[in-house]
Amino acid sequence: MRTTSVDFIRIATKGPGDVSGLASMIASGSIDPKSILAVLGKTEGNGGVNDFTREYAVSALCVALAPHLDMPPDGVEHRIAFVMSGGTEGVLSPHITVFTRRSVAGSGGISGKRLSIGMAHTRDFLPEELGRRAQIEETAKAVTAAMADAGIKDPRDVHFVQIKCPLLTSDRMEAAVARGNKPATTSAYTSMAYSRGASALGVAVALGEIKDAICDADVLRRYDLFSSVASTSAGIELMHNVVIVLGNSDMSASPYEIGHAVMHDAIDAAAVIDALKSVGLPAGAGPHAGRELVNIFAKAEASPSGTVRGFRHTMLEDTDISSTRHARAAVGGLIAGLAGTSAVYVSGGAEHQGPPGGGPVAVIVRL
Amino acid sequence: MRTTSVDFIRIATKGPGDVSGLASMIASGSIDPKSILAVLGKTEGNGGVNDFTREYAVSALCVALAPHLDMPPDGVEHRIAFVMSGGTEGVLSPHITVFTRRSVAGSGGISGKRLSIGMAHTRDFLPEELGRRAQIEETAKAVTAAMADAGIKDPRDVHFVQIKCPLLTSDRMEAAVARGNKPATTSAYTSMAYSRGASALGVAVALGEIKDAICDADVLRRYDLFSSVASTSAGIELMHNVVIVLGNSDMSASPYEIGHAVMHDAIDAAAVIDALKSVGLPAGAGPHAGRELVNIFAKAEASPSGTVRGFRHTMLEDTDISSTRHARAAVGGLIAGLAGTSAVYVSGGAEHQGPPGGGPVAVIVRL
Amino acid sequence: MRTTSVDFIRIATKGPGDVSGLASMIASGSIDPKSILAVLGKTEGNGGVNDFTREYAVSALCVALAPHLDMPPDGVEHRIAFVMSGGTEGVLSPHITVFTRRSVAGSGGISGKRLSIGMAHTRDFLPEELGRRAQIEETAKAVTAAMADAGIKDPRDVHFVQIKCPLLTSDRMEAAVARGNKPATTSAYTSMAYSRGASALGVAVALGEIKDAICDADVLRRYDLFSSVASTSAGIELMHNVVIVLGNSDMSASPYEIGHAVMHDAIDAAAVIDALKSVGLPAGAGPHAGRELVNIFAKAEASPSGTVRGFRHTMLEDTDISSTRHARAAVGGLIAGLAGTSAVYVSGGAEHQGPPGGGPVAVIVRL
Amino acid sequence: MRTTSVDFIRIATKGPGDVSGLASMIASGSIDPKSILAVLGKTEGNGGVNDFTREYAVSALCVALAPHLDMPPDGVEHRIAFVMSGGTEGVLSPHITVFTRRSVAGSGGISGKRLSIGMAHTRDFLPEELGRRAQIEETAKAVTAAMADAGIKDPRDVHFVQIKCPLLTSDRMEAAVARGNKPATTSAYTSMAYSRGASALGVAVALGEIKDAICDADVLRRYDLFSSVASTSAGIELMHNVVIVLGNSDMSASPYEIGHAVMHDAIDAAAVIDALKSVGLPAGAGPHAGRELVNIFAKAEASPSGTVRGFRHTMLEDTDISSTRHARAAVGGLIAGLAGTSAVYVSGGAEHQGPPGGGPVAVIVRL
Repeated sequence: MRTTSVDFIRIATKGPGDVSGLASMIASGSIDPKSILAVLGKTEGNGGVNDFTREYAVSALCVALAPHLDMPPDGVEHRIAFVMSGGTEGVLSPHITVFTRRSVAGSGGISGKRLSIGMAHTRDFLPEELGRRAQIEETAKAVTAAMADAGIKDPRDVHFVQIKCPLLTSDRMEAAVARGNKPATTSAYTSMAYSRGASALGVAVALGEIKDAICDADVLRRYDLFSSVASTSAGIELMHNVVIVLGNSDMSASPYEIGHAVMHDAIDAAAVIDALKSVGLPAGAGPHAGRELVNIFAKAEASPSGTVRGFRHTMLEDTDISSTRHARAAVGGLIAGLAGTSAVYVSGGAEHQGPPGGGPVAVIVRL
Repeated sequence: MRTTSVDFIRIATKGPGDVSGLASMIASGSIDPKSILAVLGKTEGNGGVNDFTREYAVSALCVALAPHLDMPPDGVEHRIAFVMSGGTEGVLSPHITVFTRRSVAGSGGISGKRLSIGMAHTRDFLPEELGRRAQIEETAKAVTAAMADAGIKDPRDVHFVQIKCPLLTSDRMEAAVARGNKPATTSAYTSMAYSRGASALGVAVALGEIKDAICDADVLRRYDLFSSVASTSAGIELMHNVVIVLGNSDMSASPYEIGHAVMHDAIDAAAVIDALKSVGLPAGAGPHAGRELVNIFAKAEASPSGTVRGFRHTMLEDTDISSTRHARAAVGGLIAGLAGTSAVYVSGGAEHQGPPGGGPVAVIVRL
Repeated sequence: MRTTSVDFIRIATKGPGDVSGLASMIASGSIDPKSILAVLGKTEGNGGVNDFTREYAVSALCVALAPHLDMPPDGVEHRIAFVMSGGTEGVLSPHITVFTRRSVAGSGGISGKRLSIGMAHTRDFLPEELGRRAQIEETAKAVTAAMADAGIKDPRDVHFVQIKCPLLTSDRMEAAVARGNKPATTSAYTSMAYSRGASALGVAVALGEIKDAICDADVLRRYDLFSSVASTSAGIELMHNVVIVLGNSDMSASPYEIGHAVMHDAIDAAAVIDALKSVGLPAGAGPHAGRELVNIFAKAEASPSGTVRGFRHTMLEDTDISSTRHARAAVGGLIAGLAGTSAVYVSGGAEHQGPPGGGPVAVIVRL
Repeated sequence: MRTTSVDFIRIATKGPGDVSGLASMIASGSIDPKSILAVLGKTEGNGGVNDFTREYAVSALCVALAPHLDMPPDGVEHRIAFVMSGGTEGVLSPHITVFTRRSVAGSGGISGKRLSIGMAHTRDFLPEELGRRAQIEETAKAVTAAMADAGIKDPRDVHFVQIKCPLLTSDRMEAAVARGNKPATTSAYTSMAYSRGASALGVAVALGEIKDAICDADVLRRYDLFSSVASTSAGIELMHNVVIVLGNSDMSASPYEIGHAVMHDAIDAAAVIDALKSVGLPAGAGPHAGRELVNIFAKAEASPSGTVRGFRHTMLEDTDISSTRHARAAVGGLIAGLAGTSAVYVSGGAEHQGPPGGGPVAVIVRL
């Protein structure tokens, strides 16, 4: 018995504050604002600590959606999960993908598993908990809750887990120190990596990808521990983790399927092709056999080893451009080339998300 | 009758001043320093006006080669063509490719055309000639001369023309103004584009890719005029153009072949695959049927239209990172993925080199 | 007979979207939102084309002020002039200065001229008018109107003219070309300079600082033509110029005075000291003889000559950091040092605002 | 009895590889190459890990000086101390200051102490020793040795101690780990701070500025521990510390004096004025009473507290521009303004060099 359906609408944006595309789709009835569960977006900032395009985009979306939801802008952010990933380096094109969910009655004659979404939140973290066991464990619990929300029982049906997680600012670090506790790092920029890494490890724990116990010291060190489906993004605007699970479920009546593969390094074209094939798409092509690409979600990072297949890269020793920007640009170029479109979601900072230097790549296709 | 042979040796570098790889190959006899015709390299600067890694690399190579050539370092630069392209964004790996040429007697039973190299120089330009007809016409003459030097008669056998050209500095612009002449631009950074563009148009004229007369106003405006095999790189260290022609010739006894294709936009995976196939290589793979990739040479640029296949890119409106850096990172990611190696030569600033937003991509294979 | 009074409140911000300081001053009655005429701010973006912190700050201020003004957020922007200057390089501290104006009856025994504000707008410009005579002439008219609004008759009583002006985007340039007209430049970044320059020349014309006719070709070329009190800032969010005149008037009953000086180069400490002295403040000090610094407003730019007092600077040939960021950082450091506070307004891009490489510096003091 | 004299020649450079100024002074006899003890320079790179302008400048100087010293270029670097500080942000002008020393006989009727130089080296460090006690203690020993070399007995006569120290690269960190040891940090960029900080603490120990024992954990944490005269600069090209002591000695017959002050924050104009006054110079002026400014040497850093005199700065949370670049630009602007020249030496990264957010500023004057 199918009980829910989901929809995915990709909308190009003209700037971080541009909500005109969404507004006209609401006006035309293409999107029911009350059904919006989450919005994933790429905004054109630097993706670092001082990337205000993320919060600006969220703010603009809240202001635009508030009247439709009969609540003040503040309330919207608690109802809908907004995950804005900063950085559209290279060919990457700013856009948002709106995820909606509604109840349906009956299966409509659909056979097989279809794309479903589930969501959950952790509690607020203390600054000193970021990048450590508390964040890992709370995230794992939230992943399990989100799977249940999506109607997914088998971890193998989970193909992408998007998490939005906090970072440390000077204020937050001071607060921790004032309580007599030491945060995981004294650098705001580095705290983004810690938070992303611990959140990804939480996914791996929840899905059984890691069996052994994880300790604080493993975070950002034991890169052999990772999740193949986690994608985590740090933002200044929250203190808890928001977890969105995407997978295939026999409870879903949606017209979409999702698949994934794992890039083993930043030039792993074969993995991108595998991910496309897993949902019946050829590489580099448009619609195929009635299947149309909706979006690709991937994580990218500079290989911590300093090399890619034996050749040195310079991403980690560049004082002008942060390594996350380099990695998004390069992996974005490869994925856009193979997908045939530059409006793809490639997010930086893949700590414990896929093997070191690699990352997960998930593809959503409309049947 | 084969009369010359050429060799291509790709050497990874640890920094712009690193000549240790070349030095040990000379010491072991793998490279005869007297046979070196040109060195093409990727160095890890910003590729812009203040990228000193290019001149540093050239300086280090001259100092290292001088004793082997019995001449002072200054003399080496006049004997060997050094083309350093700054910018190893994303996965691109710093390296040099050493081109050698020597006379041979007899064909050694080789059939078909093989890779050959030819070189020529233009005269020194006045600052006010850069980016204008004088530079176009002198370059065209030098391309013809370099083809003859390479033993290539048919323009269709030319697969890559690498040019090193000058840029305008404050001093040079002032000198032009003092003479009562106006340079093409008052921006040093923009002058790099003018010089690259006019040089590429010179190649197109020489190879018959453009039939009509070109005027000054066409440079950086009529992007429908372009060469499919030109690759031009501006540097502060010279005032003339150095032209290196790579193509297949029946005069060559070398164990290499070269082929090329034209990327029509920055995500044109199909063109990269075509270029690989043109020399018998599969996409994304290693050695195949006794053919081994030596290097890929490509040009990249941000589409002047501001879009890639209908989706907006942000490269041209980014005040933090120049568009050439974005473009190299993205195209470098795609080519490295399809070539299976990140030690490829992707150079920025593809004005009149391939169609707008695209660029030539050439592949050298060892049989 | 004094008829108006003005107030200046400097409020530190925690980010471009932070309106908490203003909100609490409104809540406490320290600021009457209905009296707000203009807000000048420094936001922490890059100050370039893709600096979204400016529009984000304006958006946040509009949303915050809308309920107090009984109008939708869109309306607020038409009622209040928001001038956000991006770029808080070096020690510069993000803040806003709120300008309020209200009617008063009677002089309250004040003698001498006191600080007054006037405002005016130009009509919307066509993209092809930016950086040209139309923008100069319309701006001059608006300056005259704003002086009248401020109750200032003598141009010598005008000490600072802040203008917010448009820039060219790809869309706007295409629209001009589609109409058969050529915009002043094809670079979005360069268009900011053209717009700032033409606006500054408009001030000079209005105040009689330039007597001769100005033609299009003078803009960004004849740097001997300039205004000593103009400060212009380009932003993507408008197509007309907003003009704010600050000067001393015998119509004002405010407790402030304003004075100014002109920096002749970026290290002109003497001019900063003169500006401070002109309103009775010593250099580097705090309150003095009952006079307290409210804010300093200055413009900075990299000397187009490439040198400062005979020594080369590298600002104009840096491909990593734009010259406006360099200039704001350096001049901001000097002014903050002499003013004794880093919450000062130093804005980049001083084309035709002060002599080449220099810029105006105005000081507001509370008596 | 005066036994030595020193000379200081400031030479503007046109680029990191420009040695023409030095060459012509050697040709004219103004500089005896055999008397060169050290060269301090500002080069126009980013001052970060991938700033190759430093090693390029040193390489060019070694090649230029080698024939004059009858040794190969490699040997020059062991004979002369080259300290290149990358980063000429804002108005800072690229230049070198050549320090020479020669023996003299008799005092020439000089009274009072005059400027003297002394030098010493530490042993090579292991990567895991950087930023830790070993580096502190070895540096302290070298400072004592350099004081003796300068003929300075009283620590109060030491006004500037310039140190060049190593940084960690990926290779070096791996080597440490391979030996079973953990380096102080896993980030190349952060390692520069550790190395600078430990070196500065070594100066403080040697001069008695710190009395208590220092442990590894104090480095980059206990910022209340600092030297008022240390200036340390990290570079990739060495594995030991080079220590240069500048102070006044009654053994010196030089025509120079040196003085210093300590900036307590980045806008401490009063300290810069004090430093100028300490050698008889007025602020902002040229020659005075027969005294002429030779150069100013200062260190700058972003206040770790995130504020300057109560106002927030954004230097530490900027992902586009590193905080060292911001700080050099701002402090350089202030010092250049007060000194009246932009060819001053302001170096970034002032960990344990002056109080947090501040730094030492030393002035050399020619009598």
